Amino acid sequence: MMNQDVIIKVIELLGTFAFAISGIRHAAAKHFDWFGGYVCGIAVAIGGGTIRDVILDVPIFWMTTPIYMICTAVALLTVAFLSKWMEPLKNAWFVFDTFGLALFTIAGIQRSLDAGQAFWVAIIMGCITGAAGGVIRDVLLNNEPVIFHKEIYAMACVVGGLAYWGGIELGVPVGITAVVSFVVTCLIRFLAVRYHISLPILQGEEKSDGD
Amino acid sequence: MMNQDVIIKVIELLGTFAFAISGIRHAAAKHFDWFGGYVCGIAVAIGGGTIRDVILDVPIFWMTTPIYMICTAVALLTVAFLSKWMEPLKNAWFVFDTFGLALFTIAGIQRSLDAGQAFWVAIIMGCITGAAGGVIRDVLLNNEPVIFHKEIYAMACVVGGLAYWGGIELGVPVGITAVVSFVVTCLIRFLAVRYHISLPILQGEEKSDGD
Amino acid sequence: MMNQDVIIKVIELLGTFAFAISGIRHAAAKHFDWFGGYVCGIAVAIGGGTIRDVILDVPIFWMTTPIYMICTAVALLTVAFLSKWMEPLKNAWFVFDTFGLALFTIAGIQRSLDAGQAFWVAIIMGCITGAAGGVIRDVLLNNEPVIFHKEIYAMACVVGGLAYWGGIELGVPVGITAVVSFVVTCLIRFLAVRYHISLPILQGEEKSDGD
Repeated sequence: MMNQDVIIKVIELLGTFAFAISGIRHAAAKHFDWFGGYVCGIAVAIGGGTIRDVILDVPIFWMTTPIYMICTAVALLTVAFLSKWMEPLKNAWFVFDTFGLALFTIAGIQRSLDAGQAFWVAIIMGCITGAAGGVIRDVLLNNEPVIFHKEIYAMACVVGGLAYWGGIELGVPVGITAVVSFVVTCLIRFLAVRYHISLPILQGEEKSDGD
Repeated sequence: MMNQDVIIKVIELLGTFAFAISGIRHAAAKHFDWFGGYVCGIAVAIGGGTIRDVILDVPIFWMTTPIYMICTAVALLTVAFLSKWMEPLKNAWFVFDTFGLALFTIAGIQRSLDAGQAFWVAIIMGCITGAAGGVIRDVLLNNEPVIFHKEIYAMACVVGGLAYWGGIELGVPVGITAVVSFVVTCLIRFLAVRYHISLPILQGEEKSDGD
Repeated sequence: MMNQDVIIKVIELLGTFAFAISGIRHAAAKHFDWFGGYVCGIAVAIGGGTIRDVILDVPIFWMTTPIYMICTAVALLTVAFLSKWMEPLKNAWFVFDTFGLALFTIAGIQRSLDAGQAFWVAIIMGCITGAAGGVIRDVLLNNEPVIFHKEIYAMACVVGGLAYWGGIELGVPVGITAVVSFVVTCLIRFLAVRYHISLPILQGEEKSDGD
């Protein structure tokens, strides 16, 4: 029988892999070379967690094991040689990506609470862990960050984080709280993409006057 | 009677609010959603101070109180619902923004000196505290940073910082030094915008050869 | 007779100068002002090392001496006033830039090993020290990072780092190892530019579907 730690580890690796794939495919769309693709993959896979750990002033998570670097290298080879086989798996990547998002959010929250931070800080850190990597990717690719004007993405982390907070406040055991938070984050993301649910758009005029 | 700390606190909140407004309005001009607007507002309001605290290796200033997050949320609601009423207040935002710039610069200098840094480092940190948030905003918005080719902005922080340095070296009490530095920074910024004073532009050819 | 430390110091200053020149010339091509040029010069000269030191959680290297700021200021004056004289020196800048790349890589590796990191982390840090500054420059200039789709650049750091690793593992004295690593990095870079050697390009379709 698989125990809980193994399940979490497997989800984390699948999530890291899906995040890396996302970065590398975007890099491929811009005709970056292998190195550029690898950096974009790494940026999505570990960028958010790195910012989190730097801000929390705790050891950077990926420096204790090369597994994230290896996982991204496998993702690079997959995109480089198997991209034709990837198209039919599109929905699988999306599911893994969402699992990664939810799990990274929870990992970010827990790491922040362990570092003695308040819950509102932990939720921000969960959101950064899940969503900041994609922003770094878009900045490196010279694109406008997609999470700022598409289907709900980062807000799923925030609501999942609030669910986590609620569970802990209500005295629900941490394992159940984590599962509920995971499900809430995934559900919001799935529903948002399925029904094209977006946040309201801000209306503004083109600025040409500086400030 | 209001005491000095209250005045500083009020200026800081007005400055944070004006900085957040700046980020959110730029995001609105690119039709970002509410989340994107909030992130751009946060980036301007706390981005510079966060970089400063990370480089100084001191606790990140905004993690001790949710006031900056709340202030940015109010700014978001203001832009979302009251943008028509904001146009006539254009000059007020500009004044608050400049006050924020000057106060953030001084706060950055003082925090760096408290951390045991040399004065030239403190001036750089003051400049980062005041001006780096706007650069992060422009990077997120996929624009060229406006402070790199418009009216004098960051140089006002540098000159204000030099005034602070001079005051301390001359033995002027720190309160008076701070006020002088504040006035110098604001004055330079106001004059630069009023009379369209810019730094000289660098002349160069379009680079198409890579490095 | 010059001793080893003086040689390293001279190479480091020439490298910093060449890196700063690279940032300022790119800024000039976009018609940034002096401040924007200085920031871009600083970004290339010290950006990589700053990210390295933040991630390693060690004191930031440039805060102990103003030499890097002064060196960049001299580079700014050089570009501003002597740009006509610089064109014939194009090859010299390229050589200095490559020396800087190789030396920064080695410095990054050594600093990481001193901080108790594993060798694979040290090689990544060497690569960041040498190459991340140019990426920050391109992000600030709103360009796609040139090292992601041009001649081999960052991979020269990686191979030079592997040479360093091999030398240490084989028990070669650290001085000789460093020289070999330096020569390997420079040689790869020179050959890549001379014969237009690039990494394979990733093939992908334009993404218009968001994720």
